[in-house]
Amino acid sequence: MQLKNALYAQSGGVTAVINATACGVIQTARKHKDRIGKVYAGRNGIIGVLAEDLIDTGKETARDIARLRHTPGGAFGSCRYKLKGAEEDRAQYQRLIDVFRAHDIGYFFYNGGGDSADTCLKVSRLSGHLGYPIQAIHVPKTVDNDLPETDCCPGFGSVAKYVATSMREAGIDVASMARTSTKIFVLEVMGRHAGWITAACGLAADKEGDPPHLMLFPEIAFDQAKFLARVNDCVERFGYCTIAVSEGLKGADGRLLAESGLRDAFGHAQLGGVGPLIAKMIKDQLGYKYHWAVADYLQRAARHIASKTDVEQAYRVGEAAVKFALRGMNAVMPAIVRISDQPYRWKIAAADLTNVANREKMMPRDFISRDGFGITDKCRRYLAPLIAGEDYPPYRNGLPDYVTLRNVAVPRRLAGEFRL
Amino acid sequence: MQLKNALYAQSGGVTAVINATACGVIQTARKHKDRIGKVYAGRNGIIGVLAEDLIDTGKETARDIARLRHTPGGAFGSCRYKLKGAEEDRAQYQRLIDVFRAHDIGYFFYNGGGDSADTCLKVSRLSGHLGYPIQAIHVPKTVDNDLPETDCCPGFGSVAKYVATSMREAGIDVASMARTSTKIFVLEVMGRHAGWITAACGLAADKEGDPPHLMLFPEIAFDQAKFLARVNDCVERFGYCTIAVSEGLKGADGRLLAESGLRDAFGHAQLGGVGPLIAKMIKDQLGYKYHWAVADYLQRAARHIASKTDVEQAYRVGEAAVKFALRGMNAVMPAIVRISDQPYRWKIAAADLTNVANREKMMPRDFISRDGFGITDKCRRYLAPLIAGEDYPPYRNGLPDYVTLRNVAVPRRLAGEFRL
Repeated sequence: MQLKNALYAQSGGVTAVINATACGVIQTARKHKDRIGKVYAGRNGIIGVLAEDLIDTGKETARDIARLRHTPGGAFGSCRYKLKGAEEDRAQYQRLIDVFRAHDIGYFFYNGGGDSADTCLKVSRLSGHLGYPIQAIHVPKTVDNDLPETDCCPGFGSVAKYVATSMREAGIDVASMARTSTKIFVLEVMGRHAGWITAACGLAADKEGDPPHLMLFPEIAFDQAKFLARVNDCVERFGYCTIAVSEGLKGADGRLLAESGLRDAFGHAQLGGVGPLIAKMIKDQLGYKYHWAVADYLQRAARHIASKTDVEQAYRVGEAAVKFALRGMNAVMPAIVRISDQPYRWKIAAADLTNVANREKMMPRDFISRDGFGITDKCRRYLAPLIAGEDYPPYRNGLPDYVTLRNVAVPRRLAGEFRL
Repeated sequence: MQLKNALYAQSGGVTAVINATACGVIQTARKHKDRIGKVYAGRNGIIGVLAEDLIDTGKETARDIARLRHTPGGAFGSCRYKLKGAEEDRAQYQRLIDVFRAHDIGYFFYNGGGDSADTCLKVSRLSGHLGYPIQAIHVPKTVDNDLPETDCCPGFGSVAKYVATSMREAGIDVASMARTSTKIFVLEVMGRHAGWITAACGLAADKEGDPPHLMLFPEIAFDQAKFLARVNDCVERFGYCTIAVSEGLKGADGRLLAESGLRDAFGHAQLGGVGPLIAKMIKDQLGYKYHWAVADYLQRAARHIASKTDVEQAYRVGEAAVKFALRGMNAVMPAIVRISDQPYRWKIAAADLTNVANREKMMPRDFISRDGFGITDKCRRYLAPLIAGEDYPPYRNGLPDYVTLRNVAVPRRLAGEFRL
């Protein structure tokens, strides 16, 4: 067997557990030194590959690589950059081959979401079209949980645990204050196209009347009158009302509420997101005192409250990616296959990348309650195992002790710069 | 010794650990059944006392009372309600006495911040002015950390741990993305008058260049030109810039930035807080892509990442309040006295309530760096021990398992309603 080097890169929005996947890739590769030589990483994802700005992960200690498992964010840097088709921009692909050849790369592991799956698929075809032998494996990652072919996406379970916990905690706070003060609490969460994260907030409720009382999904066109009637009903019944809203909430006209609404004195779209907009709408129409929170990056970086299931799956897809490569596979993705809900059992299988790239998995309509403001039991059965278990990072001086890698550059072998 | 009942009430904004104080009060009182009969709680704070809407904590199991220690929010309900002076509204005080007498209350424990200390002080004077023997003990609680006479305030340490952790995590996320995407991240935190919580964000940084790069304190008038120059410098040096901003940030004119700025098309003050305002200012002036988060109630309800030191202190002030009462004390507050920074050692001592009520402890100027954008080593030494240690709640189905008490009402003994 020929000894080839591996190249790993992180892509798109990072998560609390993408480094756990990196840990899985690197630790597994290190166990197969007869087949895999160096493990390089692209600095800032595919951009680092194009720029021949590679990191030698061999310069990191085993201890620091192990610490990746509990460190959020992208330890090698990520990027938002989509390769064009090989027909449109042949120079980019030629450059990738030049870099691969210069560093004797035989395995390419690309860790990202739907756009990255597309990039990875294009790289996998270099093998055929451009005559350079490369095995490209896509490793799934996205808090949006919208990749097809896999039951869930590493990164999502930890966001789900964070938003459900935050909703439960803030809900208890509001319930305490509602008699004389805040009666409305709105939590805005991520998920522009699919309501998976919004739905996860619903796990906070164990029984009717528990927060969140209402959920606003991007899949359901916002109906102001119906919504306000429900808010009022909720305050009358329970004394307060808590709401989870997706940043991607749209009106009946299909426009994002956050962008369709108010403008400031200079005509700029208003600053806040849809969370404050919904809160103020309630205040203006119903008169209730409100608070709102926008969790933004806090939700996807919250490694301190990661789901143990999610961390394990993130590690395992990294490990499986290397095993697939060693089996000679190309243009595949390790997908999570659910065997049973309760007890939760799952395995990893190879999915064909052509079925993954550029396709979004939306939330099924029967995961949302008929009235559009809640989740169904079916949705709950799907979500519940994904947030199960705690996996605390170590702490030092009262704070999570996350690793910063040395990220030593690999000496360049190519002359000249490549312009992105 | 005479057997008297005790009345405990929660006041003002709740915290992640105010129920740990309730736990301390109730468990300690239960150990002294020879002196303290029933322990009642006001439903929604002092309002429940005025309305004779009391809760019998004796109806709760020992296990549920123990679970208060790890449950955020106010288990008996809180309120924002300030008693007037006895000269202004004698009827209210007469009503308190009527309720106390009807339920044989000898000990009053009021758990709150500065306003509540004032209420508690007024109640303590009932003893003298109105001839009803009552011992009123104020039990400190406020995330704002602005009570005098005590080294720190229960509730603050856990918010501090939450915001520092969140800043560290989001900072790692932004650093990963900065090459092609988000370069600016703004986290808005609580603390309208004092910058304690903003300062706590600074604990996230271990060395120069670590997030947060800049802090905007309510104590330092905002200087836009100076600030933007620092942001630009930071992006040039580190590739990105993370900022912690207090909701109470003010301009040179003393007005809150969040209120002095933009108005929407209808002339309403803009929806977002100061966090989005600062983020958009950077985008408009410097052109950098931004993200922002407003943690709001999430920060003060985040029991899942409470500081062990804070939980312990919250419990201990509750315990001490009961012990003070048993020693016959009135108009006092258990205060936390720092003995040493490192190792951190502290004790509890009685502070005179007249020195506590209606006074705010501001952050010393020498806790803020000379340039106004950071914290000093002195500040760090003060803050560090307050976030030390973890105290995880138990989990069930992937979420923190918080208690909801039965909150059984005490039968009323007074005829007629009291109008608040």
